[in-house]
Amino acid sequence: MEQLAIGIDLGGTNLKGIIMSREGEGRHLTRVPTEAKKGGQKVLENILTLVDKIVQKEGSKDNIIGVGIGTPGFVDRDGTIIGGAENLPGWKGMQIYEPIQQQFGLPATAGNDVTVTALAEWRFGAGKGFKNIVCLALGTGIGGGIVANDLLYKGSHGMAGELGHICVETNGLQCNCGQKGCVERYASATGIVELAIRVCQELDVKQQTPFAHEVLRKPQNLTSKIVYDYVKRNDPVACRVNELVCEKLARAVGIIVNALSPDRIILGGGVMMAGQVIIDTVSRYVPMFCWPEVWKRCDLAIAQLGENAGVLGAAGLVFEDFTDRRILEDRRDDV
Amino acid sequence: MEQLAIGIDLGGTNLKGIIMSREGEGRHLTRVPTEAKKGGQKVLENILTLVDKIVQKEGSKDNIIGVGIGTPGFVDRDGTIIGGAENLPGWKGMQIYEPIQQQFGLPATAGNDVTVTALAEWRFGAGKGFKNIVCLALGTGIGGGIVANDLLYKGSHGMAGELGHICVETNGLQCNCGQKGCVERYASATGIVELAIRVCQELDVKQQTPFAHEVLRKPQNLTSKIVYDYVKRNDPVACRVNELVCEKLARAVGIIVNALSPDRIILGGGVMMAGQVIIDTVSRYVPMFCWPEVWKRCDLAIAQLGENAGVLGAAGLVFEDFTDRRILEDRRDDV
Repeated sequence: MEQLAIGIDLGGTNLKGIIMSREGEGRHLTRVPTEAKKGGQKVLENILTLVDKIVQKEGSKDNIIGVGIGTPGFVDRDGTIIGGAENLPGWKGMQIYEPIQQQFGLPATAGNDVTVTALAEWRFGAGKGFKNIVCLALGTGIGGGIVANDLLYKGSHGMAGELGHICVETNGLQCNCGQKGCVERYASATGIVELAIRVCQELDVKQQTPFAHEVLRKPQNLTSKIVYDYVKRNDPVACRVNELVCEKLARAVGIIVNALSPDRIILGGGVMMAGQVIIDTVSRYVPMFCWPEVWKRCDLAIAQLGENAGVLGAAGLVFEDFTDRRILEDRRDDV
Repeated sequence: MEQLAIGIDLGGTNLKGIIMSREGEGRHLTRVPTEAKKGGQKVLENILTLVDKIVQKEGSKDNIIGVGIGTPGFVDRDGTIIGGAENLPGWKGMQIYEPIQQQFGLPATAGNDVTVTALAEWRFGAGKGFKNIVCLALGTGIGGGIVANDLLYKGSHGMAGELGHICVETNGLQCNCGQKGCVERYASATGIVELAIRVCQELDVKQQTPFAHEVLRKPQNLTSKIVYDYVKRNDPVACRVNELVCEKLARAVGIIVNALSPDRIILGGGVMMAGQVIIDTVSRYVPMFCWPEVWKRCDLAIAQLGENAGVLGAAGLVFEDFTDRRILEDRRDDV
């Protein structure tokens, strides 16, 4: 019997849903508005509506083994949102497994939206065939996900993978997490823009380049894409920003390499539109920040799945939690 | 049928061996000299001699399912020592599974000596009953071990868990790993002693306490035990050293909490003879260095198994690798 899973990706603007086979073949990709501002209950209703639409399109629930959800924030084992989803008012405290079970008779599972992209990259993308991988999503902030021993590692309460808050500068820039010097203050899209502006503002007039002129004229328009467009043109100031960004990122990568010794670390998110230059620059710095012996057996790669990683990972979670992982847990209970 | 495993703990001076049941009951604890200076081949011969002695004592190989070895350094999947065992000349490059298989007809497995203590604490000690734990062994250096999703996490080439080299001070003290500011430069036995000497040397005469007098009189005699004896007597200078040590340790713990969100972080090794004062002081600092929401669901505890953790963990590895883990991998191969 073909086994199918429904995956839902909860974004700030849209909910995205798909139905997927174990091999990663997806169909019925569907979007509905999240309506985040209307509160947690409304978001949940929209999720139920989306699941219903997908079931309708499929025409039958017979082969569907469960529903997986990727959501901002932390999801505890029982399906309660326990924090970390600040841009979804009223989402914290919601119980999301029961309503799905009740309305569709399907078991539900969920994970952090970035964490599940790691599962997707491992099953279908840049991490395929490896046993241990780590993903870093360089977006507005930096999120992370870990696959360890061929299983997604969620941590004890769905909170693992907060790799954007690895401290890379003692007493560095203040972060909204309360710490100082978190890597996301330097190497997220936001961090890169702020760093570039600071670098340009500190230049003498003689040192200014076309990049610096553009930044100083309209700093509010700067994006990480613009920074890396100039890096590609070899603008010296933009290249210096890239070095600063990648040195900080390499400090975090070095800690991950020493702690987890994965086969591969995958960099994704909007910033990675810049591509290979970031991989190359970070790779140059990493040996300074970990055991070179360990780093020799690891590499950096660009994420392959793009914007559908979330929805594929959410569906992948269903297979992970309701078939693969269960085998081991059943065995453990016998011991 | 009762299943038994042989565990071997490779120390710089002695090899320790035991035979253990799945429930952790050990017998025939035996020691032979490591003879590290005579080179890798001699160490391997001594391991074979030790296994033979234990088999003789047991009187039968019938119920023994394998041999597990905890060793300094990194062991690749095929049983080759690929580095990190500097105090065992000629150990790097040795193949340790084949000779055991040939001489005894038993499969062998191995792991880093600190990594396997994490397995022991999780199966039989302070980590029992949890799904995800991290151990930090505060000795001459700092080693680490991770249990993730109810499985020991060795990393891709037996190299995971180098948690002593988490950077906690950007451009801090030089470490022998090549990095600067590694936590083991501040919170290992060696690091604590060096830190205490520096603190005492910087004091004005008026600020000197009985602890400072003792340190400055014979700095070469100082041990972390002496530091913590004075902490217990509330010596202000010793207490200040404790604060500095624990603040640094808390920075590493914070990174581990954010990255792995374990149920518990277990502190062991010689330094932890000091006991609860370190747990309490570190716990006070950790919320400054991670998401408090994640830390709320984690705690710090003292390792319970003492000096036999290594040999119990090495035997535990046999059950882990030849029964529990195999179930999952067989299933994966079918997919």
